[in-house]
Amino acid sequence: MNSPARKSSKRDEEVLEAAIKVFYERGYAEATVQDVANEVGILKGSLYHYISTKEDLLYRLFELVHEQVESIKLAAEAATDLNPVERLELYVHKQVQYNLENIERISIYYHDLGLLGPERLAIVQAERRAHNSFVTELIKEAQSAGLTDNTLDARMLANCVFGTIIWTYRWYRPDSRASRETVARLCESFALHGIGSRDT
Amino acid sequence: MNSPARKSSKRDEEVLEAAIKVFYERGYAEATVQDVANEVGILKGSLYHYISTKEDLLYRLFELVHEQVESIKLAAEAATDLNPVERLELYVHKQVQYNLENIERISIYYHDLGLLGPERLAIVQAERRAHNSFVTELIKEAQSAGLTDNTLDARMLANCVFGTIIWTYRWYRPDSRASRETVARLCESFALHGIGSRDT
Repeated sequence: MNSPARKSSKRDEEVLEAAIKVFYERGYAEATVQDVANEVGILKGSLYHYISTKEDLLYRLFELVHEQVESIKLAAEAATDLNPVERLELYVHKQVQYNLENIERISIYYHDLGLLGPERLAIVQAERRAHNSFVTELIKEAQSAGLTDNTLDARMLANCVFGTIIWTYRWYRPDSRASRETVARLCESFALHGIGSRDT
Repeated sequence: MNSPARKSSKRDEEVLEAAIKVFYERGYAEATVQDVANEVGILKGSLYHYISTKEDLLYRLFELVHEQVESIKLAAEAATDLNPVERLELYVHKQVQYNLENIERISIYYHDLGLLGPERLAIVQAERRAHNSFVTELIKEAQSAGLTDNTLDARMLANCVFGTIIWTYRWYRPDSRASRETVARLCESFALHGIGSRDT
């Protein structure tokens, strides 16, 4: 039973990779299931073995991103040897790196969020709230510990931190002279100073 | 000759306001010229007296935003009694306020930029480059004057500043307890600390 299961999962991945490429190049709204089938090199009918609608493909992209950024959040949570400012630094750094390495799926994620159906949109919003709360709590901890300026609203600062992380997909050019590591370090510095860190 | 010209311009404004409302509520890609005509309360045929295509309406929105944010840039440029950090502070504050006061048109501006034809897109990109250069030069001046950390890349910092300004349209809720003034002050503080300002 192992071999067919593994095969099917590999094809699932191929389909998702093809969908990401097609949605990124043509725009999700414009792209068709036929375009994705052409990209995979299978008949449209065969593609419907893996999905029921175009939105299923979009939602798989969201699930993939959530799974991957969840592991970044978990790693920052688990770094209990670090103080809250250092944990936030780690989180921002890894998130920016992830976004720059996956600029196609991140572009679709933020551009086409509103095209998900209401139930799926609610799930995505809950995922994003979890990340928002995580960063807000880290900022509050840092403020309580006297590591950062405690006169500023932690929730709004968290939104600014996400602006710094997310907006990179709109300005970073993969062919730029600046490496992803350089950009991640700069964003980390910007966000940490931005929240009024006295450490970095 | 004055009166008909004034009338036509008032109707132009009405059409644009209606288009902004419709594009914001339905999404530009989904909205039709018929929807805009219904919103104005005129026949679709009459609307074609003011525009040739739906994209003309979209582009008018871009022209309107450019005209308005240009005056913010000019005001910050003209404030020669202020040092570069203070001029940047003024610019960030006024830009955030503008975005929050005009959240519908700003949402369309950033979401649907890619749907403009190539010539119009090039004009928009040139406008945005002018703002980017303005902020980059202010940061370079601040660095040379020893007012901010001069070890960081000014152009990348400018992109982070724009992330702080622009991302507000994705998180600010007009019904929130925080006033636009409070948000503008927080973003100003975040951006100025972010670039490594030693002043604020």
